[in-house]
Amino acid sequence: MARRLQDELASFFFEYDTPRMVLVRNKKVGVVFRLIQLVVLVYVIGWVFVYEKGYQTSSSLISSVSVKLKGLAVTQLPGLGPQVWDVADYVFPAQGDSSFVVMTNFIATPKQAQGYCAEHPEGGTCADDSGCIPGKAERKAQGIRTGKCVAFNDTVQTCEIFGWCPVEVDDDIPRPALLREAENFTLFIKNSISFPRFKVKRRNLVEVVDAAYMKTCLYHKTLHPLCPVFKLGYVIQESGQNFSTLAEKGGVVGITIDWNCDLDWHVEFTPGFNFRFARYFVENGTNYRHLFKVFGIRFDILVDGKAGKFDIIPTMTTIGSGIGIFGVATVLCDLLLLHILPKRHYYKQKKFKYAEDVGQGAGERDPTTTSSTLGLQENMKTS
Amino acid sequence: MARRLQDELASFFFEYDTPRMVLVRNKKVGVVFRLIQLVVLVYVIGWVFVYEKGYQTSSSLISSVSVKLKGLAVTQLPGLGPQVWDVADYVFPAQGDSSFVVMTNFIATPKQAQGYCAEHPEGGTCADDSGCIPGKAERKAQGIRTGKCVAFNDTVQTCEIFGWCPVEVDDDIPRPALLREAENFTLFIKNSISFPRFKVKRRNLVEVVDAAYMKTCLYHKTLHPLCPVFKLGYVIQESGQNFSTLAEKGGVVGITIDWNCDLDWHVEFTPGFNFRFARYFVENGTNYRHLFKVFGIRFDILVDGKAGKFDIIPTMTTIGSGIGIFGVATVLCDLLLLHILPKRHYYKQKKFKYAEDVGQGAGERDPTTTSSTLGLQENMKTS
Amino acid sequence: MARRLQDELASFFFEYDTPRMVLVRNKKVGVVFRLIQLVVLVYVIGWVFVYEKGYQTSSSLISSVSVKLKGLAVTQLPGLGPQVWDVADYVFPAQGDSSFVVMTNFIATPKQAQGYCAEHPEGGTCADDSGCIPGKAERKAQGIRTGKCVAFNDTVQTCEIFGWCPVEVDDDIPRPALLREAENFTLFIKNSISFPRFKVKRRNLVEVVDAAYMKTCLYHKTLHPLCPVFKLGYVIQESGQNFSTLAEKGGVVGITIDWNCDLDWHVEFTPGFNFRFARYFVENGTNYRHLFKVFGIRFDILVDGKAGKFDIIPTMTTIGSGIGIFGVATVLCDLLLLHILPKRHYYKQKKFKYAEDVGQGAGERDPTTTSSTLGLQENMKTS
Repeated sequence: MARRLQDELASFFFEYDTPRMVLVRNKKVGVVFRLIQLVVLVYVIGWVFVYEKGYQTSSSLISSVSVKLKGLAVTQLPGLGPQVWDVADYVFPAQGDSSFVVMTNFIATPKQAQGYCAEHPEGGTCADDSGCIPGKAERKAQGIRTGKCVAFNDTVQTCEIFGWCPVEVDDDIPRPALLREAENFTLFIKNSISFPRFKVKRRNLVEVVDAAYMKTCLYHKTLHPLCPVFKLGYVIQESGQNFSTLAEKGGVVGITIDWNCDLDWHVEFTPGFNFRFARYFVENGTNYRHLFKVFGIRFDILVDGKAGKFDIIPTMTTIGSGIGIFGVATVLCDLLLLHILPKRHYYKQKKFKYAEDVGQGAGERDPTTTSSTLGLQENMKTS
Repeated sequence: MARRLQDELASFFFEYDTPRMVLVRNKKVGVVFRLIQLVVLVYVIGWVFVYEKGYQTSSSLISSVSVKLKGLAVTQLPGLGPQVWDVADYVFPAQGDSSFVVMTNFIATPKQAQGYCAEHPEGGTCADDSGCIPGKAERKAQGIRTGKCVAFNDTVQTCEIFGWCPVEVDDDIPRPALLREAENFTLFIKNSISFPRFKVKRRNLVEVVDAAYMKTCLYHKTLHPLCPVFKLGYVIQESGQNFSTLAEKGGVVGITIDWNCDLDWHVEFTPGFNFRFARYFVENGTNYRHLFKVFGIRFDILVDGKAGKFDIIPTMTTIGSGIGIFGVATVLCDLLLLHILPKRHYYKQKKFKYAEDVGQGAGERDPTTTSSTLGLQENMKTS
Repeated sequence: MARRLQDELASFFFEYDTPRMVLVRNKKVGVVFRLIQLVVLVYVIGWVFVYEKGYQTSSSLISSVSVKLKGLAVTQLPGLGPQVWDVADYVFPAQGDSSFVVMTNFIATPKQAQGYCAEHPEGGTCADDSGCIPGKAERKAQGIRTGKCVAFNDTVQTCEIFGWCPVEVDDDIPRPALLREAENFTLFIKNSISFPRFKVKRRNLVEVVDAAYMKTCLYHKTLHPLCPVFKLGYVIQESGQNFSTLAEKGGVVGITIDWNCDLDWHVEFTPGFNFRFARYFVENGTNYRHLFKVFGIRFDILVDGKAGKFDIIPTMTTIGSGIGIFGVATVLCDLLLLHILPKRHYYKQKKFKYAEDVGQGAGERDPTTTSSTLGLQENMKTS
C-alpha cells in the first residue's frame, strides 16, 4: 500500500504531460494561424493594455468646492431710485457653496404684513361673496379666503384673503433683466480633490497661478486655461446660451469639472429657475417682510473624475482571458484544416486517434462523420 | 547560417500544429461532455450576456435637482393671533436645493436682545450665588453665567446668564404640530441628469408632461406616474410614516430617484430633525432677533443610477474567461474516462504516450500510477 | 442522406475527444511544472479570492448627513460691549447640512445704507476728480464711481462711489480670532447610509450609544470611538492644524466618513475661507444692512464607502481567466522540455507528429527547425 502511495506521489511530482501535437506543414493554414494570433495579440496588448489601460483599477474621487463672486450691479426701480447690489445682496446662499444662485432679475413686493387684502386675479375673480368659499386655498393662492369679494383694482374684483398683504403681482417679469450686469460678474472657483483609495490630492490652483495673477486674470480656453476666475457671461456663452435672455427668467447651469486626465470642464443648461425669499424686519412692533421673487442662474459645480492606477487583478484577468481568446486561433484553423482543405481527410486521420468500445473495429468507422463537430467541440480540444 | 534562419522563419510561418486528439466513442462520456458544454454555454451566453449584460460598461451619472414648494398654512399663536405661512416663510434654504427643510412645527422666542436674565432650569437650578460659578458654560447653556442666582419664575431659582434674553423655553413641543397643514403642500421636483462618458441626457419632465398638466396634476404611483408634483403627505405615507406625528418632532426623508432603467423612486426615513434659526432686526438702535427652534422635515433628494453601453473590453473578457471555463468540461470528462469508467486502463493507454528517461523501458511503467493526477493536472492538459 | 445525418448526430452526441498527451517522466520538468501550478493557484485562490475578494461585486452608497452644533462664544467689540454668540448666530446655513460654516472671525460694517461715500483706498486713491472715471467699477470696487474725488480720511483721498455706505474696511483681520472659543464647540454628526443595490442600511448611532451617553460623551479615537459628538478643536487638531491660527483666516475642513468596513473617518484641510453676508433691516422707512465679512471653518462632511457582496459574474470571470493563466505552466515547461533540456530532440519527436504535404517525405524534415516556435505558439498548443 505504502509502495503504491509512493508511486502515486512520484508520478504526481516527477511526471509532466504535454499535449501531443500534430505538426501540419501547410502554408495556407500556417499563415492564417499566425494572422489570427497577431490580431488577438494586438487587441490584448495594444488595445486593452495601452489604449484602454486594462491594467488599471479606478477610484472615485472626493471633492470640495468653494466659490467666490465679485461684481456690482445697479438697478433703477420706479420710486426706489438707484440701488447698488453687491455679493451679499445677489448670491444665495452667502457662504459660497458648490451650488449657488446668482440673482439676475427679481420682482419685489416691499413691506408686506399679515392682514386682509384682495387676492391676485390669477387666483380667480369674483362677482360677489358667493363666489368666495371661506378658508378655501388653491395651489396658487397667496392667502386664506375670508369669503368676501372685494375690489382688486378699479376694474377687477377678487376674493379677499388673509395673508401677507399686499399680494405679490408677478404678472410681467422685468425685461431687460434688472441685474443684467451680472454678465460681468466674476466667479472664482477653488476646487481640491482627493482619491481616498490612492491617497492622491489635486487642486485647480496650480503653482504657476499666484495671488497676483488671480487678482487680474480671466479664464479663457486658450489664453488663460489655468486661471480659476470665470466671467459669468463667458460661462453662459460656453453653454450656448444668450445671457440677456437667460437672465430674465433664470436657469440652471451645470459646470462639470472633469479630472479624468487633466482639469477639463464643460457646461450644461436647463432653462427657467426662480424662487421666493423674504427679508423680515420689525417696525413699531409690527412684523414686516420684503418679498422677492428671484429669477437667477443657479450654478451647480459638479466634479467628476476617475484616477487609474496599476492593479494586478485586472491585469491578470485581462491576460487570462486574452489567453482564452488565443484558443480561437486553433479553433478556426482546425475548422479550415479538417473541414475546408481538400486534404482534410488525410489531416483528420493524422489528428485523431480512435478509441472504440470493444466489439467495434476501428476500421469500420468513417472518420468523416466527425466532420459534424462544431467549433465548440474544436474549442474544447484546444481551450 | 542564413539557410538555418530561413528554415526557422519558414517553419514559424508556414507550419501549424494542432493537438492530436483521442476520439473516444463512448455514449456516457459523450453525453456528459455535451451536457457540461451546454451548461457553460447557457451560463456565458444566457446569463452573463443577456441577463447581466456582461457586454456593457457602466457610467456614473451627474445630476441636477431643483424643487419648488407650494402651499399655505395658518397658525394660531396665543397673543399673536392668526398668521399665514407661505413658501418664503417655511422653506430652508429658500433657493430650492436638492436638500431642503419644510418647517412643520416651531417654538418661537420673540424679540431677544443681548442682556442679563435667568438661565433655563434645564441648565441647572441653584439655591444661592455659591451654586453659580461665573463664566462657566455647559453644553446646554444659553449664556455665560454671571455668578448670581436669580428667580426664573415664582418657584424656581436659576443662575443668571449674559446672553440673548429672554432665554428660549423649549420644554414642551406644540402638539399637534403648528404647521400640520404642510401635509397638503405640494413639491415640484425638476431633475435632469447626464452620463458624461456616454454624452446622454435625461429629464424627469417627459414630453407628455406639459405646463397645463403640471399645474393641476398630483403624482400617484399608478394614476399619475409621470407627474413631477408630489403631495408631502403622500411622500411621507410612502415612507411608511404618519405625517402628523412626524410633523411634531420632524425627521429626515430621503427620496431616492433611481434612473437605472426608467425613472423610479423610493423613500427612506430617519426620525427627529430640528434646528434653530433667527431673524435679526433693529429697533431704536438696538439689535433684536426672533429665535425659532424649527422642527421640520428635511428632504434629501438623492439621485442614483447607472447606464450601460456596449463595450468591447468586458465583452472580450467575458468571452475569454468563458472559453477558460469551457476547459472544465474536458477536465471532468477525463476524470470520468480515466479514473471511473471500467475500461479506464484501455483509454489511458490510448490517451497517453510515454516518453521515458533513458535506461528505463517504457513497458516497465504502470500506467495506473497516473491515476493520481488531480483535476488540476487534467486542467493543465486542456486549458 | 438521412442515414448520413444520423451518423453525424450520433458522432456529435456519443463521441468525446480529448487531447492525446505525452507523458514525460522527468524529475526537473515535473517539479517545475507543479511549482508554477502552485504559484498560479496561490495567486487565484489566495490573492484574488481571499485577499482581494474577487468574488464580490461592489455598490455605491447613498448617504444622508445631519449635524448639530452646540456652544457659546463671547466677543468684546469696541463700542459694542460684550456679546454672546450662539448656534443661530455663528452657523451657516442654519439647517445643519452636511456642508456648513462655523464663524470663527469676522469684520463687521454696521448699518450700511445706499448712498454716496469715499471708496476704500484699496480701490485706488486719487488727486482730483480727473482721476475718477464715472461709472467705472473695478473688480474690487464697492460701488459705482460718481467721478468726484473726496477725502477718505485726513490723509488719503479716494474716488467717491455710490453704493452701500460706509464702505467696508477689511484691511486688518482681528487677531486673535474674535470667536476663538469655537474651539470648544461640539459637533454632533448623524449619518445614515444605504446601499440601494443590496438593500442594506447603516447608521453611525449604534445601539450602545444612547441619549444619555450622547449628552455627555466626546469623541476620542481610542477612549470614545463610538461617540458621534466631536469637539471642533479635536477635529482641526486631527487635520494637523493649529486652531487659533486657522480660526483667524478660516479654512475648509473635509471630514471623510469611510464606511468601507467599519465606520472610519479622516480629515483633510485647505486654508483660507471667508464670505460676506448681510443682515437687512428697516428703520424709519430706510433700508439698512449690517455687513459681515465672515472668516470661518467650512466643514464638508463627505461620506465614502463600498459594500461587497458575492456575485457569480466576477467569480466566474476570475476562475475563467485563472484557468487561462494556468496554461502558462505548460508553455514554460514545454520551453524547458523542447529547447533547453539536453534530450530535447528526443522529446520533440515524442511530442510532434508530422503531417506533410504530398510530395515531401516526412523524413526529410528536420524537427529541430521547430525550435523557432515561440512561447506564443507553445501557448497555442495548450491554451
